[in-house]
Amino acid sequence: MTTAKRDTYTPESLLTVAVRVFNERGYDGTSMEHLSRAAGISKSSIYHHVSGKEELLRRAVSRAIDALFAVLDEPGACEGRAIERVEYVTRRTVEVLMAELPHVTLLLRVRGNTKTERWAMERRREFDQRVAELLTSAAADGDLRADVDIRLATRLLFGMVNSLVEWYRPHSGGGDEEEQLAETVVRLAFDGLRTVPGDAHRG
Amino acid sequence: MTTAKRDTYTPESLLTVAVRVFNERGYDGTSMEHLSRAAGISKSSIYHHVSGKEELLRRAVSRAIDALFAVLDEPGACEGRAIERVEYVTRRTVEVLMAELPHVTLLLRVRGNTKTERWAMERRREFDQRVAELLTSAAADGDLRADVDIRLATRLLFGMVNSLVEWYRPHSGGGDEEEQLAETVVRLAFDGLRTVPGDAHRG
Repeated sequence: MTTAKRDTYTPESLLTVAVRVFNERGYDGTSMEHLSRAAGISKSSIYHHVSGKEELLRRAVSRAIDALFAVLDEPGACEGRAIERVEYVTRRTVEVLMAELPHVTLLLRVRGNTKTERWAMERRREFDQRVAELLTSAAADGDLRADVDIRLATRLLFGMVNSLVEWYRPHSGGGDEEEQLAETVVRLAFDGLRTVPGDAHRG
Repeated sequence: MTTAKRDTYTPESLLTVAVRVFNERGYDGTSMEHLSRAAGISKSSIYHHVSGKEELLRRAVSRAIDALFAVLDEPGACEGRAIERVEYVTRRTVEVLMAELPHVTLLLRVRGNTKTERWAMERRREFDQRVAELLTSAAADGDLRADVDIRLATRLLFGMVNSLVEWYRPHSGGGDEEEQLAETVVRLAFDGLRTVPGDAHRG
């Protein structure tokens, strides 16, 4: 039985188990023993696939980081007015967050005790910085409220977007629900909850 | 020395230490031994003040909960149009969060393993529900965008507001900075980041 299980493990399925355990117990609180028990394979079998738990963390957060940075290279993020590009990036960030929920959750929870954690935090800051630059361009175009500090706006925007990992759970609803959710985040962040003054009856 | 220290401890100063340790180690990860070491007094001295760590948790989160619910009884939350009331409650919630940062941080992190934690989560849900009701009234008045689901809007609003515990740290700036921050949260949530179409040059 143990042998059969071991044979069926791949680096990918081991990663799935590791991400789940890291999110449940915290990365610091997870030992190779915990991973071994959760995967139902021996520690030496795990070492057959990876050098240790830090490699599993690096692989897991890389997946989230790569997906987020890929958004910045998409045409919608590179072409057109800055305000449209930052709305596009916000929408796609929400979509990536939903598609890669366990990996992004892990990324958002790392706290910087190891080299890999510090690297992940640095990459997160780089991503936030790229979005802040788009917001700065949008402000220069006169498309952003002049009374909002960009640094603060970036933090609040990501505060709202990242909160999804706390409460969003995929439903059978699938594509439609996810599209609706991403659209709501963009509308709230850029247009606000309030109807435009004098526009109350158009709603 | 130990005796002198013990004598200076009050339930209030013990609570301050406990909240800090709970926030650093997590409530589950904190033992009476940790509290005893952090406070520099014996466990029996702690038991002189409180029945155990769950009582310290209850007192700490009660302070956050009481401060939040008090907002709902203020005139700004009870009088006038629903949209103005919900903007008022949002602004005051941000202010309470900044004023009671360690206590609100602890409240937002409890996960429900003990009776006190489940009670705290239930009270948080009640507070969110009260805000959701205000948003529902504002929508009925035609003051909220018709294309936004109230439940989702409530979650995103609190996602943004509650994210402050992750990055807000009090500065010497004091009152002005806090007022500015609370105002930005309200403006972003209700008016959005974008300038109103056709209003780009008004800034």
